[in-house]
Amino acid sequence: MASSDGTQSPHANIGVVGLAVMGSNLARNLASRPGNTVAIFNRSYEKTQTLMDEHPEAGFVPSADYAAFAASLSKPRTALIMVQAGKGTDAVIDELVKVFEPGDIIIDGGNALFTDTIRREKAVRATGINFVGAGISGGEEGALTGPSIMPGGSAEAWATIGPILKSIAAVAEGEPCVTHVGTDGAGHFVKMVHNGIEYADMQLIAEAYDLIRRGTGKSPAEISEVFAEWNHGELESYLIEITAEVLRQVDAETDKPLVDVILDQAGAKGTGAWTVQTALDLGVPVSGIAEAVFARSLSSKPEQRAAAAELPGPVDTWTVEDADEFIEDVRLALFASKIVAYSQGFDEIVAGAAQYGWDIKKGEIAKIWRGGCIIRAQFLNRITEAYASDPGLVALLTAPYFVDALDRAQGSWRRIVAMAAHAGLPSPAFSSSLAYYDGLRAQRLPAALIQGQRDFFGAHTYKRVDKPGIFHTLWSGDRTEIETEPSSH
Amino acid sequence: MASSDGTQSPHANIGVVGLAVMGSNLARNLASRPGNTVAIFNRSYEKTQTLMDEHPEAGFVPSADYAAFAASLSKPRTALIMVQAGKGTDAVIDELVKVFEPGDIIIDGGNALFTDTIRREKAVRATGINFVGAGISGGEEGALTGPSIMPGGSAEAWATIGPILKSIAAVAEGEPCVTHVGTDGAGHFVKMVHNGIEYADMQLIAEAYDLIRRGTGKSPAEISEVFAEWNHGELESYLIEITAEVLRQVDAETDKPLVDVILDQAGAKGTGAWTVQTALDLGVPVSGIAEAVFARSLSSKPEQRAAAAELPGPVDTWTVEDADEFIEDVRLALFASKIVAYSQGFDEIVAGAAQYGWDIKKGEIAKIWRGGCIIRAQFLNRITEAYASDPGLVALLTAPYFVDALDRAQGSWRRIVAMAAHAGLPSPAFSSSLAYYDGLRAQRLPAALIQGQRDFFGAHTYKRVDKPGIFHTLWSGDRTEIETEPSSH
Repeated sequence: MASSDGTQSPHANIGVVGLAVMGSNLARNLASRPGNTVAIFNRSYEKTQTLMDEHPEAGFVPSADYAAFAASLSKPRTALIMVQAGKGTDAVIDELVKVFEPGDIIIDGGNALFTDTIRREKAVRATGINFVGAGISGGEEGALTGPSIMPGGSAEAWATIGPILKSIAAVAEGEPCVTHVGTDGAGHFVKMVHNGIEYADMQLIAEAYDLIRRGTGKSPAEISEVFAEWNHGELESYLIEITAEVLRQVDAETDKPLVDVILDQAGAKGTGAWTVQTALDLGVPVSGIAEAVFARSLSSKPEQRAAAAELPGPVDTWTVEDADEFIEDVRLALFASKIVAYSQGFDEIVAGAAQYGWDIKKGEIAKIWRGGCIIRAQFLNRITEAYASDPGLVALLTAPYFVDALDRAQGSWRRIVAMAAHAGLPSPAFSSSLAYYDGLRAQRLPAALIQGQRDFFGAHTYKRVDKPGIFHTLWSGDRTEIETEPSSH
Repeated sequence: MASSDGTQSPHANIGVVGLAVMGSNLARNLASRPGNTVAIFNRSYEKTQTLMDEHPEAGFVPSADYAAFAASLSKPRTALIMVQAGKGTDAVIDELVKVFEPGDIIIDGGNALFTDTIRREKAVRATGINFVGAGISGGEEGALTGPSIMPGGSAEAWATIGPILKSIAAVAEGEPCVTHVGTDGAGHFVKMVHNGIEYADMQLIAEAYDLIRRGTGKSPAEISEVFAEWNHGELESYLIEITAEVLRQVDAETDKPLVDVILDQAGAKGTGAWTVQTALDLGVPVSGIAEAVFARSLSSKPEQRAAAAELPGPVDTWTVEDADEFIEDVRLALFASKIVAYSQGFDEIVAGAAQYGWDIKKGEIAKIWRGGCIIRAQFLNRITEAYASDPGLVALLTAPYFVDALDRAQGSWRRIVAMAAHAGLPSPAFSSSLAYYDGLRAQRLPAALIQGQRDFFGAHTYKRVDKPGIFHTLWSGDRTEIETEPSSH
């Protein structure tokens, strides 16, 4: 609705900056919902024009510069940035801050590192403008039809953007998959952990597939049926569903299963590594996620793999006796390992919330992951229930539902890890998850020996089981014990 | 040798700043070697006076302020900073830069993060002063009697400090345990990886001890004998040696083995986490080191462990049939896992050198770790030999000596990992190392499925095994394959 002087009347309630595929699809999603009028802007106008031409039904309000874009938005102005994370985001924020006013809202919907979001929120808030870092999961299709959205930022901003984000989010069991996660970087933090869990989930599925294939000799098409069946049970999830689809796919050129034609070197965009790096800062063991990240980097070392191809392995060829029993063992090992991955991920959220002062409702996070996002799963309702009945739950896997599941699964899990070790099949995520489980439930860990070693070589001191205090044995002296202060080195 | 006006004549060839236990011991070590005269300085003079009083034989040249300290040093002035890593280091550097001149040398001997060292080296170099980040390993005793020293910095600085550092370093097979590692942050990088390997080594020993204890019912004193015996074979190393000492120790108060009295919560000072975080940035799988770091953080979660103590475990009680055979299996599992840990650590050094432009001689690094440092071991000669016969070795574990060792060990390794899984004993580092080994030697990994999933949900594309190019299947379309450009999201 251009006025006679060519400027826009300020009637769009939301604007999108950055019209690559994610931005375009979110803009179309927004425009398709009642009540939204969507302003659009892109650094090069060509993309804006293309989107206008291809989607006249959307009624987009285009602008050729930031001033016109700001003028096209009703107040408080709300802009969703969908550009490459990093310097691109900073550049757009700088421009928007020039044309926006106090009370307006800038949303970064990219995959920003949460510490960048904390920094940006602080800087933008100083201008009186609201800054919201929002994790958005669901890929291109989710962006168009309904993603899971994890916004951080102020309660004031949420009051304005909540209804708009709810209008485009996925819906799970009648509820939109969006909630106000917490202040500043909370949304991007939770999105990061979501991606870390996704890495673990995918690696576990990959190990399950590999074990079944090598153990039973079933074809990818046959294993696709196994996953399709699993998708009707407690493993029901998007990733299991698409695994069945991928395994079913036949390469047109070779007539082979597509999975056999795809190069076995997995890529990564960095959010999995961030999840592990952040967990290390927070002191949270996320070993399952770490193994998944490392399994991808290992796969992408063709030179090392070629050099290692002749390393000795088991001599016996290996097939399982009862394929159905074996597959059920794998299913339960997958389920148990998945519980560990989610438990580790929620531990990281709890630790992050404590570190950064976020009031994150764990049950709400599980709820908004039920739809739209990559790790969406039936299973997440159980997590919501667990935190609903015990908001102070110290570890997800100790909730009654999960204890029951682990009880049912642990025999299978142990058999699978043992068989994989004997058979020479790599199962880093299965075995790491089991080791974590056995470590957490151990009455006594050999960490005591490690403390003894540390005291021996570095005078790092130790605590005792039977009384308070900090102690050191005079290892290079008469080996008596002294009470001491904590060592600073 | 104070002159009549109270200032020092410039006759000390090295100065030490920071006289806590590491600094004091290094100063005493320096003073004890022919040709060295050692200037000392501490923020509070009290510590300087104490060190003077306790060690008159050292002939220390004390100073009460930085100007006097600088005046007491012959040119090029050389100062070794031994203060708390972080802001303390920066503060001392700022002061030294004021009183030093171009050509002088500042050595930071603390546990600095290598990226801080790169930053500091650049800033100090701009003044014409040389800055050397030097990793020093060996703890308090090593500092006094001979540590392993890993200096970075310029060749010019090395020409001056090399002889001084050689005079105090440990000696292994006639060679001092110090070498010029590379420019700027190379020394602290290598020291960081050293510590990461140390974490893995300690965790593996802890798992070995735990398995033997639970599998055979042997007492810590009996297991001490096992480790003492291992120390005469291919596992010969400082950590094995001190493990025997720690396990032998009896608590005077309770008459129990000390290891049973020490609280089983392992502490950490952060260098293990740095090693893993850096490896994630570099894309190097260091899963064994990561599991070791996570095992410590898991052990230090008493609330979670208490909540998890009732989680279901194996019903059968477990003892091994032949204790000697079992112990030999554990020994070989430990040896094989240790090879993996070192191989992963050297991979990280190779990747770091490539990333930061350092010319690091891997064989030399193995050599200077043979004495003085915590991971000193017989074994390191084999690493030096491996890189000597093939400087471009793409993975340490593919060198002939290690292939032979892994061949001998892998049956035992598989039995131990499988038994631990069945018995419910946590063995995260053993099992992770085995999974890494089996992953690296796998002809085909299920990473292909992961690439299929990523292409399905995110259009992340994939490569094919049979031709070059980047491909994408139109999963939500007609499922034909198109050739495409690499995805940017």
